[in-house]
Amino acid sequence: MLFKLSHIDKKARAGTLVLPHGEVQTPVFMPVGTQASVKTLSPQELSDMKAEIILANAYHLYLSPGTDVIENAGGIHNFMGWGKNVLTDSGGFQVFSLARLNRISDEGLEFQSHIDGSFHFLSPQKAIEIQCSIGADIIMTLDQCIEAGVSYEETLEAMNRTTLWAQLCADEMAKKSPGMPPQNLFGIIQGGMFDSLRKISAEKITSIGFPGYAIGGLSVGEEKPVLYRIIDLLNSELPDKKPRYLMGVGVPEDILYGIELGIDMFDCVFPTRAARNATVFTKVGKRSLRNLSLKYDLGPLDGECSCYTCKNFTCSYLRHLFKGREILGLRLASIHNIHFLINLVSLSRKAILEGHFSDFKNEFLSVYSGGRFLNIYGGQF
Amino acid sequence: MLFKLSHIDKKARAGTLVLPHGEVQTPVFMPVGTQASVKTLSPQELSDMKAEIILANAYHLYLSPGTDVIENAGGIHNFMGWGKNVLTDSGGFQVFSLARLNRISDEGLEFQSHIDGSFHFLSPQKAIEIQCSIGADIIMTLDQCIEAGVSYEETLEAMNRTTLWAQLCADEMAKKSPGMPPQNLFGIIQGGMFDSLRKISAEKITSIGFPGYAIGGLSVGEEKPVLYRIIDLLNSELPDKKPRYLMGVGVPEDILYGIELGIDMFDCVFPTRAARNATVFTKVGKRSLRNLSLKYDLGPLDGECSCYTCKNFTCSYLRHLFKGREILGLRLASIHNIHFLINLVSLSRKAILEGHFSDFKNEFLSVYSGGRFLNIYGGQF
Repeated sequence: MLFKLSHIDKKARAGTLVLPHGEVQTPVFMPVGTQASVKTLSPQELSDMKAEIILANAYHLYLSPGTDVIENAGGIHNFMGWGKNVLTDSGGFQVFSLARLNRISDEGLEFQSHIDGSFHFLSPQKAIEIQCSIGADIIMTLDQCIEAGVSYEETLEAMNRTTLWAQLCADEMAKKSPGMPPQNLFGIIQGGMFDSLRKISAEKITSIGFPGYAIGGLSVGEEKPVLYRIIDLLNSELPDKKPRYLMGVGVPEDILYGIELGIDMFDCVFPTRAARNATVFTKVGKRSLRNLSLKYDLGPLDGECSCYTCKNFTCSYLRHLFKGREILGLRLASIHNIHFLINLVSLSRKAILEGHFSDFKNEFLSVYSGGRFLNIYGGQF
Repeated sequence: MLFKLSHIDKKARAGTLVLPHGEVQTPVFMPVGTQASVKTLSPQELSDMKAEIILANAYHLYLSPGTDVIENAGGIHNFMGWGKNVLTDSGGFQVFSLARLNRISDEGLEFQSHIDGSFHFLSPQKAIEIQCSIGADIIMTLDQCIEAGVSYEETLEAMNRTTLWAQLCADEMAKKSPGMPPQNLFGIIQGGMFDSLRKISAEKITSIGFPGYAIGGLSVGEEKPVLYRIIDLLNSELPDKKPRYLMGVGVPEDILYGIELGIDMFDCVFPTRAARNATVFTKVGKRSLRNLSLKYDLGPLDGECSCYTCKNFTCSYLRHLFKGREILGLRLASIHNIHFLINLVSLSRKAILEGHFSDFKNEFLSVYSGGRFLNIYGGQF
């Protein structure tokens, strides 16, 4: 994988990821397609919205339909009819958050499926094997996730295990024959909310050497200044020439702060999950499509938006669809929210290339949050 | 409204309805968009499938969002972003099937909403008023629906009331100012399964005079030979030069028998409802997308189909979507089923114009049903 940095504006970076299924302009927001489907949307719609890479979950796909089904189709791109890039996570996060975790050791994770209670064992080697079967363009090392507020000792133990697993994943990748489709394995930095552990984790993971680095274990309930402090800290520890991926973060304010602090890649289920609950992003903040004030509103939900939803439908109709539990409502809100974030990172990239990203960020947030999200981080940008 | 008959092949008819929102080639299958949305589909997708007219339900739209909301948008076409034709039913059928019906008299129907139990009164005049507010291209008279197996006396009473209401609806339409958008009011023939009552109903409704005639009260559980006998009977009673609409009928075998017996228009919720339950039409009959045999099936669900679903997705992926309860699965199955019926009526039209419709029907049904649906009707075609 090649990562070309086009321009750095203070810490904010505009670049290009050259991946097996096409180039990806960064910063990038990656819509989440947990079960090989970005919920409610077709591949065509994602493509129309200029999505260049989406995320899928190895944990879910391993359980259903099973890697044999995806291998039988020739990999996830063929399986789901998506010709652009895919990133899969390792499954670690889902084992901690969704499954019943029975035992954890240096060898891996023993868990029961959230679907049928069946027993499974996920080792670092198995995480690589699963992701190789799925065939995504970027895959992730197995990491140990911890809850918010965990002690220093527990965080240290999880961080050390994450380092061990990262090495085992890298070793497993090295064994793969060169005939395999090219897959890029990213390392994940852990260390909870402890700056010292985050620094050690960054040092150890980067010393193993990966084509890209992810920051895991954030956006788990911590205060925003803590989130931004750790991003800032890590970005100065990570090698400049490799892409940086902030896992699971995807509301507009976090994306903009992340970009300002040097993050290149984002993913989050929030935009599509919120959409299915009638919450949409607009220039002036989040809005509910169930609001009575929209009953006779013949305007689009965001007058400046060029998405299919805003170009073709009124707030009055969108509210009606949600009131009537029509699936079209879920689709139209999802299209809008994904388009909103893809547009936001695209405008961010333009501002970086033009050298005025912080002004762009501040202008956006002063309108979006009425100033509430400005100056939320005390660090120097 | 103009109805141009291009060709009659025995009893089967190929024609064109000239309506305010474009021409409609007949025979036609009208997808049902109960709440101003054909479930799971966008207007663009319907348009891509060459749908020229869809159906919406006055009962549902009157209760939610309310006719004031639709009037505020300038009518149902603007409201839902659909530039082609719409037909609304009068609401009578839903009052009988969905609502709690409290009292019925010659004045109309007193019922409680199935949504919130609120009290409403639907008179023939009110049915016209509601449908004028909604602004569909074709609207329907209010009729009294009866259950299957009802006695001759009750059927007679309902038929007489339907005649009375049809006259009152026609009178109400005549009062509408000529400045109103042009709407075409169709009369509905009732009379249950009694040939003599069906004949009387046809005579009385046609003597009032409407631009088109619908056959109501069928597909309520009667045997197929009874259904086809009554269609055949009525088509010889109805004026040749007006379109004939068989309400609520929309599985392939009934559509083909209906066409053979002279029907021009069909609607049914079955194709979209079945799709959401993983049942799809194919050349060789209905098929469930949940079937284990599809797990590794890399073919499309129908090899000869040119719909978006069959062109882009495998059975293996479709099964996975249904197993994982992904909304995209509901969408893709709905697209296929609607496309299948639109294609079926389009091929039927071609066969009529070429003068060999019965051969086409017999060939289709011998493959589709393995001969099971052939010679189901003893009448002479």
